[in-house]
Amino acid sequence: MAALVDRTFKLTIAYDGTDFSGWQIQPQKPTIQGMLERALVKLTRERVHVTGSGRTDAGVHALAQVASLRTPNWRASASDLLKAMNVNLPPTIVVTDAVDAPNDFHAIRDAIGKRYRYQLQVGGLRNVFDYRYRWHLYHDIDLDAVTEAASRFVGKHDFASFQAVGSPRKSTTRNVKVCEIIREPSMNGGGHLFSIEIEADGFLYNMVRNIVGTLMEVGKGKYPPQHIDNVIEAANRDVAGPTAPPQALFLKRVDYLPFA
Amino acid sequence: MAALVDRTFKLTIAYDGTDFSGWQIQPQKPTIQGMLERALVKLTRERVHVTGSGRTDAGVHALAQVASLRTPNWRASASDLLKAMNVNLPPTIVVTDAVDAPNDFHAIRDAIGKRYRYQLQVGGLRNVFDYRYRWHLYHDIDLDAVTEAASRFVGKHDFASFQAVGSPRKSTTRNVKVCEIIREPSMNGGGHLFSIEIEADGFLYNMVRNIVGTLMEVGKGKYPPQHIDNVIEAANRDVAGPTAPPQALFLKRVDYLPFA
Repeated sequence: MAALVDRTFKLTIAYDGTDFSGWQIQPQKPTIQGMLERALVKLTRERVHVTGSGRTDAGVHALAQVASLRTPNWRASASDLLKAMNVNLPPTIVVTDAVDAPNDFHAIRDAIGKRYRYQLQVGGLRNVFDYRYRWHLYHDIDLDAVTEAASRFVGKHDFASFQAVGSPRKSTTRNVKVCEIIREPSMNGGGHLFSIEIEADGFLYNMVRNIVGTLMEVGKGKYPPQHIDNVIEAANRDVAGPTAPPQALFLKRVDYLPFA
Repeated sequence: MAALVDRTFKLTIAYDGTDFSGWQIQPQKPTIQGMLERALVKLTRERVHVTGSGRTDAGVHALAQVASLRTPNWRASASDLLKAMNVNLPPTIVVTDAVDAPNDFHAIRDAIGKRYRYQLQVGGLRNVFDYRYRWHLYHDIDLDAVTEAASRFVGKHDFASFQAVGSPRKSTTRNVKVCEIIREPSMNGGGHLFSIEIEADGFLYNMVRNIVGTLMEVGKGKYPPQHIDNVIEAANRDVAGPTAPPQALFLKRVDYLPFA
């Protein structure tokens, strides 16, 4: 018998994080990684490790998370793997794309950029169908000031002020390519809807939620937009604003170079 | 002291039914009516009965349910009642309108019509953010046949075939004013989205879900559109199709005559 050869797959995955304790597998708790690995045990009859591009916290959603996995035990096509996984996943997790990848493909190491979306509502009645997906603020927000403040994140900066305490990385410098406010059509019940989208070569733990929390302090008029420069300069978590809640955050995209 | 006078209010309420055991109050279970009455106990210091225009089942949502209530213990305006209730309701229930109503206003007895919306997806990948709000069918559906079949419900008919077993009403005749298919913009992941909206002077228990289940049998090609005439004629629940699942159903509107 010929030795079985490992195959590597790149998966793109969407999930509603509401009912999960985040991405990372944990005993006795429903997690995205846990559900994916459970489906793969059924399909390959072995324990397959699924590597996500990064963890997402409890309640955080993904429109297009990316993961890699290696197995010698899947003989059919990548698109058959997608179908078989979707049959074995809960309704709030779906594999939206599956392709064969080079053997050395690794979803964390090879990621060259990510984009997140954070959804907000200002004022108006709460929308009961949106509460799992949006942060509702009752305070007036000056969107022009927020837009001006957001632009100050763009560029290569030390984001130490925006990293969750107790999660040190070797380097806290990241290159933010986009930090923009996207106004959305308004809705019944009044209020204004908008999103903040942030794209960077990488993110520190809680970086998006800490940026959003700080931007809202500017939006409320507690600080002027130039405050952002001072917070970045301080490189001190205590100087930035509070961490915005998780349920409004979506991992929107993870970028990789095309396979050679 | 002058005797306190009862005031009557008409409330319009939106809710996400996902986490509730339906409208009707039940011991030890979260229900919409239970949450509304709990909020009113806090605000009025008395037990206030909230009368909904009709019950909705577990998982069923409302864009604009209507309820009436009477209390001598609310002295502020109806719009203050709305605000106070919203502070005391869970995030998946919201009072969207509150007005003073005539003393004899009664949300069940005075309703002259209702409109429901039932949301479907045919084919494509499942949308994880829609699974609490839509019925996903993997079988091909002939929407032209469904449209033709739907039109056969319009008019005054005996809907005994579409009433849940064990829930007899005095009369099973209802006047359906609208039964239409609304195609929605398609989405990522392929598939077709559409809704079925039905408006009538009143509905029997499970009538919308039984109509939708029967329409999908036509859509799958199991029966031709004329089948609907035979099912209505039979006045026998066994002849109609299965009951469509609850989570895709929205009570969209309840109509009343204007207050005199």
